Amino acid sequence: MVRFCIFGAGQMGKRHARTLAQHPKATIHSVCDLLPHAADELAAQYGALAVHDSESALADPEVDAVVITTPASSHAQLVVAAARAGKAVFCEKPLAEDIPGARAAVEEVRRAGVPSFMGFMKRFEPGHLALIQAVKAGEVGDVQMVMLTNRDPKVTLLELSRETYKTAPYTLLRESTVHDFDLARALLDDEPVEVYVAASCLVEPELGELGEVDAALTTLKTAGGALCNINNIWHTTYGYDQRLEVHGAKGMLRAENRPETSLVRYTAAGALHDRLLSGPPDGSQFYFYKYAEAYPSEMNHFVESLEAGDPPMVSVEDGYRSQLLVEAAVESLKTNRPVQVAE
Amino acid sequence: MVRFCIFGAGQMGKRHARTLAQHPKATIHSVCDLLPHAADELAAQYGALAVHDSESALADPEVDAVVITTPASSHAQLVVAAARAGKAVFCEKPLAEDIPGARAAVEEVRRAGVPSFMGFMKRFEPGHLALIQAVKAGEVGDVQMVMLTNRDPKVTLLELSRETYKTAPYTLLRESTVHDFDLARALLDDEPVEVYVAASCLVEPELGELGEVDAALTTLKTAGGALCNINNIWHTTYGYDQRLEVHGAKGMLRAENRPETSLVRYTAAGALHDRLLSGPPDGSQFYFYKYAEAYPSEMNHFVESLEAGDPPMVSVEDGYRSQLLVEAAVESLKTNRPVQVAE
Amino acid sequence: MVRFCIFGAGQMGKRHARTLAQHPKATIHSVCDLLPHAADELAAQYGALAVHDSESALADPEVDAVVITTPASSHAQLVVAAARAGKAVFCEKPLAEDIPGARAAVEEVRRAGVPSFMGFMKRFEPGHLALIQAVKAGEVGDVQMVMLTNRDPKVTLLELSRETYKTAPYTLLRESTVHDFDLARALLDDEPVEVYVAASCLVEPELGELGEVDAALTTLKTAGGALCNINNIWHTTYGYDQRLEVHGAKGMLRAENRPETSLVRYTAAGALHDRLLSGPPDGSQFYFYKYAEAYPSEMNHFVESLEAGDPPMVSVEDGYRSQLLVEAAVESLKTNRPVQVAE
Amino acid sequence: MVRFCIFGAGQMGKRHARTLAQHPKATIHSVCDLLPHAADELAAQYGALAVHDSESALADPEVDAVVITTPASSHAQLVVAAARAGKAVFCEKPLAEDIPGARAAVEEVRRAGVPSFMGFMKRFEPGHLALIQAVKAGEVGDVQMVMLTNRDPKVTLLELSRETYKTAPYTLLRESTVHDFDLARALLDDEPVEVYVAASCLVEPELGELGEVDAALTTLKTAGGALCNINNIWHTTYGYDQRLEVHGAKGMLRAENRPETSLVRYTAAGALHDRLLSGPPDGSQFYFYKYAEAYPSEMNHFVESLEAGDPPMVSVEDGYRSQLLVEAAVESLKTNRPVQVAE
Repeated sequence: MVRFCIFGAGQMGKRHARTLAQHPKATIHSVCDLLPHAADELAAQYGALAVHDSESALADPEVDAVVITTPASSHAQLVVAAARAGKAVFCEKPLAEDIPGARAAVEEVRRAGVPSFMGFMKRFEPGHLALIQAVKAGEVGDVQMVMLTNRDPKVTLLELSRETYKTAPYTLLRESTVHDFDLARALLDDEPVEVYVAASCLVEPELGELGEVDAALTTLKTAGGALCNINNIWHTTYGYDQRLEVHGAKGMLRAENRPETSLVRYTAAGALHDRLLSGPPDGSQFYFYKYAEAYPSEMNHFVESLEAGDPPMVSVEDGYRSQLLVEAAVESLKTNRPVQVAE
Repeated sequence: MVRFCIFGAGQMGKRHARTLAQHPKATIHSVCDLLPHAADELAAQYGALAVHDSESALADPEVDAVVITTPASSHAQLVVAAARAGKAVFCEKPLAEDIPGARAAVEEVRRAGVPSFMGFMKRFEPGHLALIQAVKAGEVGDVQMVMLTNRDPKVTLLELSRETYKTAPYTLLRESTVHDFDLARALLDDEPVEVYVAASCLVEPELGELGEVDAALTTLKTAGGALCNINNIWHTTYGYDQRLEVHGAKGMLRAENRPETSLVRYTAAGALHDRLLSGPPDGSQFYFYKYAEAYPSEMNHFVESLEAGDPPMVSVEDGYRSQLLVEAAVESLKTNRPVQVAE
Repeated sequence: MVRFCIFGAGQMGKRHARTLAQHPKATIHSVCDLLPHAADELAAQYGALAVHDSESALADPEVDAVVITTPASSHAQLVVAAARAGKAVFCEKPLAEDIPGARAAVEEVRRAGVPSFMGFMKRFEPGHLALIQAVKAGEVGDVQMVMLTNRDPKVTLLELSRETYKTAPYTLLRESTVHDFDLARALLDDEPVEVYVAASCLVEPELGELGEVDAALTTLKTAGGALCNINNIWHTTYGYDQRLEVHGAKGMLRAENRPETSLVRYTAAGALHDRLLSGPPDGSQFYFYKYAEAYPSEMNHFVESLEAGDPPMVSVEDGYRSQLLVEAAVESLKTNRPVQVAE
Repeated sequence: MVRFCIFGAGQMGKRHARTLAQHPKATIHSVCDLLPHAADELAAQYGALAVHDSESALADPEVDAVVITTPASSHAQLVVAAARAGKAVFCEKPLAEDIPGARAAVEEVRRAGVPSFMGFMKRFEPGHLALIQAVKAGEVGDVQMVMLTNRDPKVTLLELSRETYKTAPYTLLRESTVHDFDLARALLDDEPVEVYVAASCLVEPELGELGEVDAALTTLKTAGGALCNINNIWHTTYGYDQRLEVHGAKGMLRAENRPETSLVRYTAAGALHDRLLSGPPDGSQFYFYKYAEAYPSEMNHFVESLEAGDPPMVSVEDGYRSQLLVEAAVESLKTNRPVQVAE
């Protein structure tokens, strides 16, 4: 039985709590939130302890593992503190707000020897996971080319962009492409060493005024010569478009979109298949619909890895490496040239 | 808030309890099972009362509605008793073991004026539901032809057939086609008045020895002249095959199968899409995978209908009518001629 | 080299001439049409002899094989005469206008020992042909169920119905279902022995006034117990709908519709695939688009069978058997009961 | 009636002759080939004059238009001579072997004011053409991103690479990507101004030894900021993979692959759709299968444009512009940086 403390009693904390409560090998031991009311309420729902400061929560010897769903600015510090306290760490993306913070977190986790997990839930969508496993099993042979499509049905991060653009420009790369970097790394046989980005802002004028881009094409090359293209668009009219494609010496694998339902309408205009799985038409929280199975699946994987003593499929090390790729991508976009990825 | 008593603490009772517990307008007031241990355990899980006899359960004035998931032999009697006690009734299929029992149950529910619901969950699969709503909205105009495909990945009811064949022959019609009769009635503009069945047993010798059939083609005609074909097969090698198709003056609507995942493998042999959504390859409980969303959806619909004071979409009346169709189908199969449906 | 005489210089005669002219092992030796101008024109186009009476055409010792594309009323008589003259016979559907005529034609062909071919071109559509070959190769094991969908985008035969309904009622069965009977026979392991038809006329009032039907569900049973359903509709709004499905002990095979083009439009309404391959929207000659490859393919097969000395895949015997099924179907429709197929 | 002289009596000359012979507004007046036997044979087949030198062929006042299918080394010179002789010009790709030659040809055609057509047949595949027309009709609004997939089922040009690599390296870009440059230009609202290529040779060692690449990712940017990605692979195991995708402010359009046939096989492994349309499994002349309709369609378009006096959809100017993009792509590959396209 793995005993958890959940840091952050917001939307993601509640979501992970629901999964842990249903897992036969996990218990929610405590909930920690700086807002006492939030901690109390979520803790009460699962019969757990409410804790209002992270030091106490981490000092509790009955906690085996932590789930960090607090605001991004506290991630790195909490990862470091949890690792020092000997706790296994599940951390939502991003690992840190900058590269030194991410590097420090990774080093502390390594030093402590605790298991860690990075919340790149997209690896756990059933089609994505089956594709990753098929590639790892050698179904396509040596990987030659990876093509990733990642397009949102709604510009979700306009407010965030307004706040952060000056210090952390190119929100599309930081919030969307970072997921693709993780998927690319899961699919390529070796690490990307070079990044080139072409981007523009043609459709979303409010983003353009901030200096943001609303579409990007990113090219990765690995040391071994494999190629990867990522296309990101920040606003489609037709739904949440998520596609993975891997080509190798032996064949091709694709994880396609799924429709909302299996209904097809046949008229003189053609055969109208239901729109891409994206949740309600207002676009709110589209990722919770597309990735409905992925969120519990990643948490179940973490619990089972801890129980089995196996390393989880994706760790804070992977969080760090994707952030390195983001920084190289931003540099490429600023300089309009291919940029080497830092080590 | 609707206060429920769940009759039957087995697999279906637990499943419905989970849905009710998550619904903001429902509470599980009590659980009734003749096996005290089963009632106690499920009741404890949700902080409900455990009751060990149905009379007490129904006499409780704090129960507004009942969910009947007990063995089929007790359904009709419980529906009658619940209706007399003024409770709203959710009943799993079948309504009764014979036509007189079903008729009596329907009459008692009518007399009592209580809302009722029949657990034909297939109407609530998202693609099926969207199709039914589109037909009702007139998208295809007058319905001319309905085609239903219903094939199981596993012969699930061999044991049941062994027990019941002598008294209730043609288990395929009773257990599979009955669902299609309900779907046909939901899709056709008027009631079927004539049934013709062609069937045989070519692939499953163990069923054939009992006198059962393993494949059937059923034709329905309505008074207005609309046509419906149902094809049932009791054992496919390729998964749980569930398709609905409606043709009308203005166009066609289809609810197709969905694959397990969106993975597609491209090789020199072709493009291999994942197999039909059917759950684990051993075929156990395939319907809980295909109809994963349908079970909670039907229960949520029942709760919301009660709260709103609207009649539920499918009632015990529908259970009775589908049983009439089954009897006509059995008669057709025995006599090899089209049979009129009793009123 | 096979030397052909083409009987009938109309649309089908011209179409077959084009195929023969391009085949390296065939020559068009002569063209015979009662309209001298028609014969002369088509003959001139291919440097062939124009002949204006069938006796002369059949007496020519340099003719090895005939292609009969004249009006249906002359088919049986020409088949008999050609067989007596020792010519191989390619005959468009129907073989004859009545059963005695068809039987006489088959008997004469048998007696003469000449190769024959019946123009059931639907067997030669590439997907259909691949499906038939896969079934014959045992891919699905013993065939348990065949499902055929055959729906026209346009009511083509209204004029024909007006002329012929009194003597040959139920044009839908005679003109559409007859093709499905041939496909069913190509797919089932043994001969159909019983036919049941349910039909109505809900959408096309002009047909209904004649006593015709515009939709039919036909059920076939073979001696061995295999089942087949055919659904025919005489007017869809959404295109020419042609689907074949075979289920057996080992799996399922389907030949699906193809779209006009591969274009897909993604909008908030969904993913709109191009309409079913049906040619121009006015619906004229839709079958020449869907079966564009099938017409030359059947003729090439006939030429190559003659060259190789192999029996063609489909003969006048098959034409006769499909007509027997049509008569049983008409009888079933008139009497509303299953009807045994005559021997 | 447009009177044609066909230059080059090889495979492409024969193919175009077949189309012209069937067009009611075209005649094949003459055939010119330096190999007298070849010219004579093709001319005889269509009752045309055989000519053995290009000067005589172009001096003939009864020739209105020429079709140039000779070896690439003679294209530019023949275009110039035909334009000077006042003939309309249909020229197979490439327009010239180098940029100065292409520029000279374009200038001469402009000066002469003759209509011209470049044999970029991929624009005329029915799905591609429908997509181009939908984009031009504004269906997706402003074009934001174009994604092109172009992968061959067979390494066709190894011998060519051996001969030409030293003078014209990067055959994949010259032979495959050039088609995509033309499609990109047909789909983007303005001209590409910058090219970046990432490429490698991981799978085809014989190509790698020559210095060739077997996979490439090409990024284009237009002056207006639209983005385009092209992915090319020189050898797939799974067939000829040709996909076009356009994203704009209002939606997305895709032209997908088509399968060889519509057959689908359902087994426990999944649903196996037929392999991509590529012709015989040995891969010979796969493009003649995928583009079976495109070759006659482009020629018919040329004839009808001439008859109507409208400019053809694609001219030698387009041939020149695609060659400029190829040169920029080669420069990018050599220098590993984005390269501006020459004017």
